[in-house]
Amino acid sequence: MSSVMEKEGVSLEELKKRMAEFAKERDWDQFHSPRNLLLALVGEVGELSEIFQWKGEVERGLPDWEEEEKQHLGEELSDVFAIPLKLCKGSSKKHTLLDLDKSNVNSDIAAGAAMDQGHQQ
Amino acid sequence: MSSVMEKEGVSLEELKKRMAEFAKERDWDQFHSPRNLLLALVGEVGELSEIFQWKGEVERGLPDWEEEEKQHLGEELSDVFAIPLKLCKGSSKKHTLLDLDKSNVNSDIAAGAAMDQGHQQ
Amino acid sequence: MSSVMEKEGVSLEELKKRMAEFAKERDWDQFHSPRNLLLALVGEVGELSEIFQWKGEVERGLPDWEEEEKQHLGEELSDVFAIPLKLCKGSSKKHTLLDLDKSNVNSDIAAGAAMDQGHQQ
Amino acid sequence: MSSVMEKEGVSLEELKKRMAEFAKERDWDQFHSPRNLLLALVGEVGELSEIFQWKGEVERGLPDWEEEEKQHLGEELSDVFAIPLKLCKGSSKKHTLLDLDKSNVNSDIAAGAAMDQGHQQ
Repeated sequence: MSSVMEKEGVSLEELKKRMAEFAKERDWDQFHSPRNLLLALVGEVGELSEIFQWKGEVERGLPDWEEEEKQHLGEELSDVFAIPLKLCKGSSKKHTLLDLDKSNVNSDIAAGAAMDQGHQQ
Repeated sequence: MSSVMEKEGVSLEELKKRMAEFAKERDWDQFHSPRNLLLALVGEVGELSEIFQWKGEVERGLPDWEEEEKQHLGEELSDVFAIPLKLCKGSSKKHTLLDLDKSNVNSDIAAGAAMDQGHQQ
Repeated sequence: MSSVMEKEGVSLEELKKRMAEFAKERDWDQFHSPRNLLLALVGEVGELSEIFQWKGEVERGLPDWEEEEKQHLGEELSDVFAIPLKLCKGSSKKHTLLDLDKSNVNSDIAAGAAMDQGHQQ
Repeated sequence: MSSVMEKEGVSLEELKKRMAEFAKERDWDQFHSPRNLLLALVGEVGELSEIFQWKGEVERGLPDWEEEEKQHLGEELSDVFAIPLKLCKGSSKKHTLLDLDKSNVNSDIAAGAAMDQGHQQ
């Protein structure tokens, strides 16, 4: 297997299946307990932060970034993205993943919008 | 719009499109600078960690968790999952998102497997 | 006990001793396993990030922040600060805590300085 | 300067002063904006997590860790510890750093203790 996402048209279901096979072939499931995966996620978010840490505010679309840096960013984002897909085994089947109306991200953004009028960049 | 993922068959492309529309309708794009999104991701990972922090090691599949807790976990995972999809605007087009062979997650796991033989739970 | 740091002249040794007594009186040591504490730290860093997440770049010294927000920041910083002091039980006695010449923070900053000339805010 | 903490009897005030001098000598203050420091903290917490990520639950005092690993842990903890001291410039002077009675860490632990009776390791 070379790449699971030749196009972004791949479904989440397909991604999860491919990742499960990939881990199984390598006998890595033994490491994928919930808290091991969670700490791995924290590590990956840390690596993502290291890309941005000394830059001050960064423009949307990263117009002045080198191609190499954008590549690095894409890799770290993939890592951050993959772990929640593995962690969600066992979370409620009733919850619809990425239900935007209920998402805390969105309510947080709404709250932030109300609170920070005039402060945001 | 009530839910973007009635089924996991939804594609990443579709998810990104729906999230973009959702933010646009609410005029939230003004808040979605790269470092704002990154710190929001850190906040969401923090909320995810709070679910697991005082539990000691947790069994795969979460067999003894209450339905409410699993629901909460599903919501937090959705939040963590959504932000990298927004952040990847500007990362390299050449990088194939979730290319498992190149992913650091996987090389880290391989390294971990080699190093921790005999230590893992 | 009302406060361990009436003045910043308190020593780290004294802080650690007071925190240990505080936890012991409440029988909280049972929760303070290394990975529990680590996840608690991640949760606290998440709360710290939530203070900053929708603000865009923030001026040093926080000149335009409300007193209430500065108070909140101080509380979250205390939490982030306290956990490493508890976690360091078991880390090498030979390592001198906060040895600035060896610290990765500093080598990272040095690397950042070299790499980001012209990019930083 | 070789080491700021020959003994843990060093005070926080002294630590902050030494760190400020260290940064000033190297002209690093230009990088130390609040959100830069915050992302650096996230990066350091990520490195700390990487030490623990594939281990499953870890015993207090780390009895079966190699000296080298303990050394590494000590270094990462120093980094995590140092950044909040730099970030607290601007947080409220009225807040007494590490006031244990008010700390969220402690109220979180209390809540966790009540909620997780029977679950903790």
